[in-house]
Amino acid sequence: MAGVVATNTTLTRPTSVAAHPVSAQAGGLSGRPLTARAAEVVALVRDRAGDALAVIGSGGVMDVDDALALSDAGADLVQVYTGLVYGGPALVRRIAAEPRRGPARGPLGRRGRRERRGGRVRHFGLRLQEATDRLGTLCVGVDPHPPLLAEWGLPDDADGLARFADACVEAFAGQVAVVKPQSAFFERHGSRGVAVLERLLADLRGTGTLSLLDVKRGDIGSTMQAYADAYLRDDAPLAADAITVSPFLGAGSLAPALDLARATGRGVFVLALTSNAEGPGVQHAVPAGGGSVAGDVVATVAARNAGLDGVPARPGDVGLVVGATVGDAVQRLGLDLAASGAPLLAPGLGAQGATVDDLAGVFGAAAHLVLPTSSRDLLRHGPTPGPLREAGQALAARCSAALRHP
Amino acid sequence: MAGVVATNTTLTRPTSVAAHPVSAQAGGLSGRPLTARAAEVVALVRDRAGDALAVIGSGGVMDVDDALALSDAGADLVQVYTGLVYGGPALVRRIAAEPRRGPARGPLGRRGRRERRGGRVRHFGLRLQEATDRLGTLCVGVDPHPPLLAEWGLPDDADGLARFADACVEAFAGQVAVVKPQSAFFERHGSRGVAVLERLLADLRGTGTLSLLDVKRGDIGSTMQAYADAYLRDDAPLAADAITVSPFLGAGSLAPALDLARATGRGVFVLALTSNAEGPGVQHAVPAGGGSVAGDVVATVAARNAGLDGVPARPGDVGLVVGATVGDAVQRLGLDLAASGAPLLAPGLGAQGATVDDLAGVFGAAAHLVLPTSSRDLLRHGPTPGPLREAGQALAARCSAALRHP
Repeated sequence: MAGVVATNTTLTRPTSVAAHPVSAQAGGLSGRPLTARAAEVVALVRDRAGDALAVIGSGGVMDVDDALALSDAGADLVQVYTGLVYGGPALVRRIAAEPRRGPARGPLGRRGRRERRGGRVRHFGLRLQEATDRLGTLCVGVDPHPPLLAEWGLPDDADGLARFADACVEAFAGQVAVVKPQSAFFERHGSRGVAVLERLLADLRGTGTLSLLDVKRGDIGSTMQAYADAYLRDDAPLAADAITVSPFLGAGSLAPALDLARATGRGVFVLALTSNAEGPGVQHAVPAGGGSVAGDVVATVAARNAGLDGVPARPGDVGLVVGATVGDAVQRLGLDLAASGAPLLAPGLGAQGATVDDLAGVFGAAAHLVLPTSSRDLLRHGPTPGPLREAGQALAARCSAALRHP
Repeated sequence: MAGVVATNTTLTRPTSVAAHPVSAQAGGLSGRPLTARAAEVVALVRDRAGDALAVIGSGGVMDVDDALALSDAGADLVQVYTGLVYGGPALVRRIAAEPRRGPARGPLGRRGRRERRGGRVRHFGLRLQEATDRLGTLCVGVDPHPPLLAEWGLPDDADGLARFADACVEAFAGQVAVVKPQSAFFERHGSRGVAVLERLLADLRGTGTLSLLDVKRGDIGSTMQAYADAYLRDDAPLAADAITVSPFLGAGSLAPALDLARATGRGVFVLALTSNAEGPGVQHAVPAGGGSVAGDVVATVAARNAGLDGVPARPGDVGLVVGATVGDAVQRLGLDLAASGAPLLAPGLGAQGATVDDLAGVFGAAAHLVLPTSSRDLLRHGPTPGPLREAGQALAARCSAALRHP
């Protein structure tokens, strides 16, 4: 045997097609619903095959980025089928025009390929879009706070944390689009807690699940660079697919993180409007140039995303944190979230009082960019992975329905 | 032998008396210059003696807090000499009126006594005052950034960090008032880096040197509580004497940290005006009630410090971060820093362009509350501990002279 062609069609029914009549039919799907899964399978095959076999990537290649994704996942050649039907021969020409890159061989696995130096990185916005298309528009927060540990029958120590993290991986990895560990709860247990976080991030990476580490870091100069290095570098022990950052020292001071994230295909979510009562005192305040502090954050993020040379319809790489409980603040402050292209991480569902139905009202024309996040309300279904997973999937479907087809 | 009386006089010449003619004379000093040292010696004696001996604390007991400090350090009884000369019999009455507390026996050491549950904690502002009186008004930043590690001939990994931290402890512990590790540079190396930070904090604690961990955390609700737990609890692996926090989610959201710090005798420094060019866009912005974001932070901190039932002349427990490079911003924004009672952590000396002579101008009537911090400019004297220490002591003396006797 000289090689493997992967893949053909998929039997899964991603959330993006759940509302379509075709999804109720039996049989395999081609085209877009297959894209992300094809890249996963190619990566898996390449990891097992090493250099011994040629791998031909196929499945859901609808545009140049999809072809590059398969190449980055380890394919030696890329096939087009459905994309050729809809895109015509021009698609082949566009793909062939990409600079030729040899496949990155060796034991790096999917992540190493995706982010390798010199290779083209797959931007975070694209990866996020694929994940939410496939698994629904939901970010699950991993917040092992003491009462929850107790509720799950776990000790409030690093071992308890580790068992909590394992249960979350079992329940959510590969099942929801994004998993968001809250760093504070790991820092509580010092370096042993941080070691658990490290392993959790590695486990999510190993299963191809996007991680968004909630750290809300913010500093200046070489210290901000150090925070970026800590979480956004390929070789960082705590590398995540994305992090949250805090702009109290000015959104411009976050540049080292935004630059590094761009270079490594990662995402950064900047706090803009938070879901707590004390937030507006800072976030609605009026800077010298008028507008609002939150407005300046949105403008900085929008400028970053406008610089992307990709498809404008997809979410950018730099996101915003906008609470689901901010009511009409987005309108009152005149924030054009849709134009920012920013994925919008929206905490506040459940425990903080916002409902899925509130989301469309708060975000209006930007609803398609919203990534709602829920933690406590989901985690109370644990510790058994089954009910956790079901609750996550059900909520993801509800969020997708509310945001994608409002 | 039934017990030990400690101490008598001190041969040291704390910075607070360096400018006084008496400091050039030979012989031991009594009174205030002895206070902090006496508590250290009492703690040392108690740690060695365990429950086998009675310990009578003596030396520099000028007020009630000093007596309590000796009691907390492990003294069974407290003697007054010089304090009686200046304070008269009323001092004895005030000390005796304090609720009687049995000494906390056992192998807890100084820290365990100081912060033990049920006992009265010694407030951070008081501990800071003592440290700066004794060792000069300077905070040394421990910023092991990659170029500096290279300059010191150390690898950019956890082992390099550990050797860097050890050199800083050897150079600065017990020699300067406050040591400020910058968390980002430890987080860069994941849980192994955080383990080095843990050990650095423990080493500083063991030598009675105040640690101020620069983490700039900020969040809401139970997440903010988790950050407080991580750094301000007695039993936290990463417990520091004080931390920095960031108020982008509103100064009010920081309450869990301020509350816990008060309860455990620790300090919290809230970002107000930072030393970077991008800071004013947020920090000078005008909230709905007028003034400025920084002004609201100062007001929150002032209200906290006003609630202290201690001596108003000493620094409060809740500090502010105000860059030494902010020029006339303090005046322009109408911030009454002196009235806030907040210790003022002032970064920006050296590398960022501020000089010791700038300090009095920037801070005016609040100069006595300023704790200047220097990192890169000092650390370039390493890696040999001797020159590092000398540079630190020289800068501390210059800062004390500029701020205490402007």
